[in-house]
Amino acid sequence: MKQRLPVVENILSANDQLAEENRSHLDAANLYAINLMASPGAGKTSLIEETIKRLSGYLDLAVVDGDIATSIDADRAAAAGAAAIQINTGGECHLDAVMFKSALKQLDLSKFDLLLVENVGNLVCPASFQLGTHQNVLIASIPEGDDKPYKYPPMYRGVDALVINKIDLLPYIDFDMEYFQRGVEVLNPGLVTFPLSCSSGEGVDAWVTWLQKKVSDHKKADRN
Amino acid sequence: MKQRLPVVENILSANDQLAEENRSHLDAANLYAINLMASPGAGKTSLIEETIKRLSGYLDLAVVDGDIATSIDADRAAAAGAAAIQINTGGECHLDAVMFKSALKQLDLSKFDLLLVENVGNLVCPASFQLGTHQNVLIASIPEGDDKPYKYPPMYRGVDALVINKIDLLPYIDFDMEYFQRGVEVLNPGLVTFPLSCSSGEGVDAWVTWLQKKVSDHKKADRN
Repeated sequence: MKQRLPVVENILSANDQLAEENRSHLDAANLYAINLMASPGAGKTSLIEETIKRLSGYLDLAVVDGDIATSIDADRAAAAGAAAIQINTGGECHLDAVMFKSALKQLDLSKFDLLLVENVGNLVCPASFQLGTHQNVLIASIPEGDDKPYKYPPMYRGVDALVINKIDLLPYIDFDMEYFQRGVEVLNPGLVTFPLSCSSGEGVDAWVTWLQKKVSDHKKADRN
Repeated sequence: MKQRLPVVENILSANDQLAEENRSHLDAANLYAINLMASPGAGKTSLIEETIKRLSGYLDLAVVDGDIATSIDADRAAAAGAAAIQINTGGECHLDAVMFKSALKQLDLSKFDLLLVENVGNLVCPASFQLGTHQNVLIASIPEGDDKPYKYPPMYRGVDALVINKIDLLPYIDFDMEYFQRGVEVLNPGLVTFPLSCSSGEGVDAWVTWLQKKVSDHKKADRN
């Protein structure tokens, strides 16, 4: 008699399966990882630089930088004091779990406490590809305009935290924060949000404190 | 005896073939079309609004708006006084020739002189898909940063004109115009460039004058 296979309700895509493997490797090394996504020029690299500056005395940091060309971002992260791996996607508009796996292989994971992944600058494609990081974070920025949650719902819906960068430009730009935040709340109720400016430094400490707590909670959970 | 087929040196992709058909329809109607591409929030819709305001007394304008969700942009174009068609790509990160064809079917092409196409906000994907427009125009913006030509070469390489928007923000942002333009020059030598601000209005007239000349040259060529 033939055996019946149980119906698998959640069939993971090949990418998501590999993302789960990546997560297992990170957890085995007790390394906490964040996937930073944003439009081109929203300030991913600047936020990474500011984060490295504030945390490098306390945590060992690594950065994985995804771009379609150049190593400008990885060079900036390395100059700020982190171990940095550049992935050039060769034209692809997002990182995926395969690329992330190949980057992880180049790092001695057990040496680091926090891994910041800078995805390709894009508000569409990266939303569909899990990497295996512990958190997905979106960086919005004031000059992009207050309508972005309405126009890019999959990205806003899929993240665990939101940074609103370049708040120093609020006096010079017509940006309705209430309208923006209403759009975010509909898509992702209660989303933790960090309004900040990488150029003035305002608000960056709150982001870094949150990140530190995430790393320390993760280490504690691992010990228990 | 079998006949030998000549080797076709440029085999067009299905998309490019359809783009050529779209171009034929536009030319048959004597309608000049521009494909506007940019990052999210670089100011595509604002530039379209300013263009409509300045040209609506002289030319009949239509707008095709591509977005992954909402009709915010088409509503703004319609409010500014143009016929507007919204394409929701259903998650796709770019317009393609098939989508553009379906939009063209909804317009009486012979009624218009100039068609502005607003592509999905993205610096990667739209570069690979010709629509059949007469010109591809990239809108960069000051807050995006001066390294974008280096980081998104296919987009900068493939366009016929470049708008540099939000120059009113130059006093508040660390943007090295010389470094930016050097990157552009390497990828696309002699590219026609329009530095402007949709919020102050500075430089917009030069862009509009160029556009008017393109439309009028195209009409003349068609008559000859």
